[in-house]
Amino acid sequence: MSLLIPGPVTITKNVQEGLNANSLSHTGPQFTTIFQSALQNLKRVYNATQAEGNLPLIIAGSGTLGFDVAGTNFVNPGDNVLLVSTGFFSDEFGECLETYHGANLTVLKPDTVGGVVPLDEIATELRAANGKYRAIVVTHVDTSTAVLNDVGAIAAVTHRESPNTFVIVDAVCSLGCEELQFDKWQLDFVLSASQKAVGAPPGLALGMVSPRALDFALQKRPTGSFYASLKKWAPILQSYAGGQAKYFATQATQLVSSLDTALQELLQRESVTHHKELSEWFRSQITQQLHYKLVTTTSDGGAHIAHGLTALYVDDPAKAIQEINKTAGAIIAGGILPEIKDKYIRVGHMGASATRDTLQLVIEALAASQ
Amino acid sequence: MSLLIPGPVTITKNVQEGLNANSLSHTGPQFTTIFQSALQNLKRVYNATQAEGNLPLIIAGSGTLGFDVAGTNFVNPGDNVLLVSTGFFSDEFGECLETYHGANLTVLKPDTVGGVVPLDEIATELRAANGKYRAIVVTHVDTSTAVLNDVGAIAAVTHRESPNTFVIVDAVCSLGCEELQFDKWQLDFVLSASQKAVGAPPGLALGMVSPRALDFALQKRPTGSFYASLKKWAPILQSYAGGQAKYFATQATQLVSSLDTALQELLQRESVTHHKELSEWFRSQITQQLHYKLVTTTSDGGAHIAHGLTALYVDDPAKAIQEINKTAGAIIAGGILPEIKDKYIRVGHMGASATRDTLQLVIEALAASQ
Repeated sequence: MSLLIPGPVTITKNVQEGLNANSLSHTGPQFTTIFQSALQNLKRVYNATQAEGNLPLIIAGSGTLGFDVAGTNFVNPGDNVLLVSTGFFSDEFGECLETYHGANLTVLKPDTVGGVVPLDEIATELRAANGKYRAIVVTHVDTSTAVLNDVGAIAAVTHRESPNTFVIVDAVCSLGCEELQFDKWQLDFVLSASQKAVGAPPGLALGMVSPRALDFALQKRPTGSFYASLKKWAPILQSYAGGQAKYFATQATQLVSSLDTALQELLQRESVTHHKELSEWFRSQITQQLHYKLVTTTSDGGAHIAHGLTALYVDDPAKAIQEINKTAGAIIAGGILPEIKDKYIRVGHMGASATRDTLQLVIEALAASQ
Repeated sequence: MSLLIPGPVTITKNVQEGLNANSLSHTGPQFTTIFQSALQNLKRVYNATQAEGNLPLIIAGSGTLGFDVAGTNFVNPGDNVLLVSTGFFSDEFGECLETYHGANLTVLKPDTVGGVVPLDEIATELRAANGKYRAIVVTHVDTSTAVLNDVGAIAAVTHRESPNTFVIVDAVCSLGCEELQFDKWQLDFVLSASQKAVGAPPGLALGMVSPRALDFALQKRPTGSFYASLKKWAPILQSYAGGQAKYFATQATQLVSSLDTALQELLQRESVTHHKELSEWFRSQITQQLHYKLVTTTSDGGAHIAHGLTALYVDDPAKAIQEINKTAGAIIAGGILPEIKDKYIRVGHMGASATRDTLQLVIEALAASQ
């Protein structure tokens, strides 16, 4: 059975071997070496090795924990935050910041489900706000709509119009399958997770923090979450990055070992190009040959369509999921965006889960179910 | 090499097999069955199956995440909390509640490092407070001092003197190796973790919540941590417990599968009795034969000495750790309590890591290093 949901993905044999590492002391030399390697490889995957002082995060937890890392460390209660919302996960991030961390949220939404907020609308809002925003928050790929935001362009506009505003990005569904340039785009905090295009098992929250965001976090009055606090984690992660174990909370030793292997594999292949080619082929088959309609709008020639999953409308999602399961031997996902939840399906094509052969079977099942 | 630190422990072959489960969809039927089983088995391990409406928690994260579960769900900013402190982990819990969640903390400490707070002192404080405490917080076993608190007695005193006060317990280092009666002692929130006497890999925060504490959390104004919020988790966990998948944050599928096996193994043996016998034998050897002094005070005949680890003073901790590593082939831990950090060592004897044979080698190494 192929796992073609938008994460978790099937892990490779080598990544599985990482899970089989002997039980290790979380402060012993063997684990320290593994953790140091994983932190360094994570920087490479984020393209965050050029600037000095970027802090990589690997913390036991799901990707959602990254929302609290943002709220606890980079936002004071009452701070203004601009949320560019492109689906369910953007809204979840907003709820975390507003309801749990006291942010004063302004939300920009696209006109249409599956669309993006025009760049000039973001620029206009930032200019009018005259520097009032502590942070702008963007979901790189919203897993609910398969919308890909142009994070590089949004960051550039933010730096131009409001240079002191932190650029915070949810890259759970993009790290490893979309271009992401932490240094070049001058991002401040980019959260992700282990179980999608990164190709490791679920259970690790990942992240990258810029030096200016870290400075802010270390000087900030503590609020929110102890477990998500960089006052606690920064000395630990910096110590492991330098080859010395240090304790705050117990590391998920087996998962970290597995993650390190996954990151190494990711760095050895042209992962972003591979995902682009595979997803464009899959998309052309289902839209041009089979005439399915995508959830993600295509008015811009497809520039905002994600490459790690495809969201498409079908008449009967439950039936389509069952049919694909039965005839293609693949597990795909249903809808999650409340407005259209029961009208569409999501096919993940990330990491080792996704090959032309497995996706071809899905295409045939979709053809048969028409 | 034996792993004799106070967690993580060596996992058994069967628990390792749980990690080798195929990559599963976190909302698919196979994982749902595994998660349902793990939640039910967790209730049995907590002795929380009699009362209706107890909520078991299994959340990706380290045990420390449980501190935020307490702060986010059971304490409002400004609420009075009574902390019974018996070491480093009690103080960490206090820092979380006070600094990050705005609790107004009162701390009771023992006179001596390694001692406990007398029960009548706790009773007097609760009586004088006349119901002002939202919660009393106790560390069942503080891993820094190997002090075991009599949680049953403290809970009984609390219910008598201040019946509306929540009894919140850190059982990270006690679940599976000390008697813990969630229902009988009428506890409200007991946090734990996967990697100690429970015998699973690190990376899962565990917990049990009473119906009255859950009611409070569901009606409380959200503060603190989105990821630790029971408003988010309760519907998810209740759904899985009933055999239906539901999404909030991605479950750590491989770890949960491994945890379920570990819980089953734990339930099949007399784990609490085994840990008691093994630790009492080890302690008698090192104190009576070798005349080492324990960190934990013994003035009460040993009633407050933990059974999952032993903390003992040595002249040269670094040398002792190295010697035990070299001649006994065992990894043990150094001190962690700031006051005496460089004066003692900690030997873990939990789960599959600990047998008479491996501990005998440690005893011999300790004898040789005198």
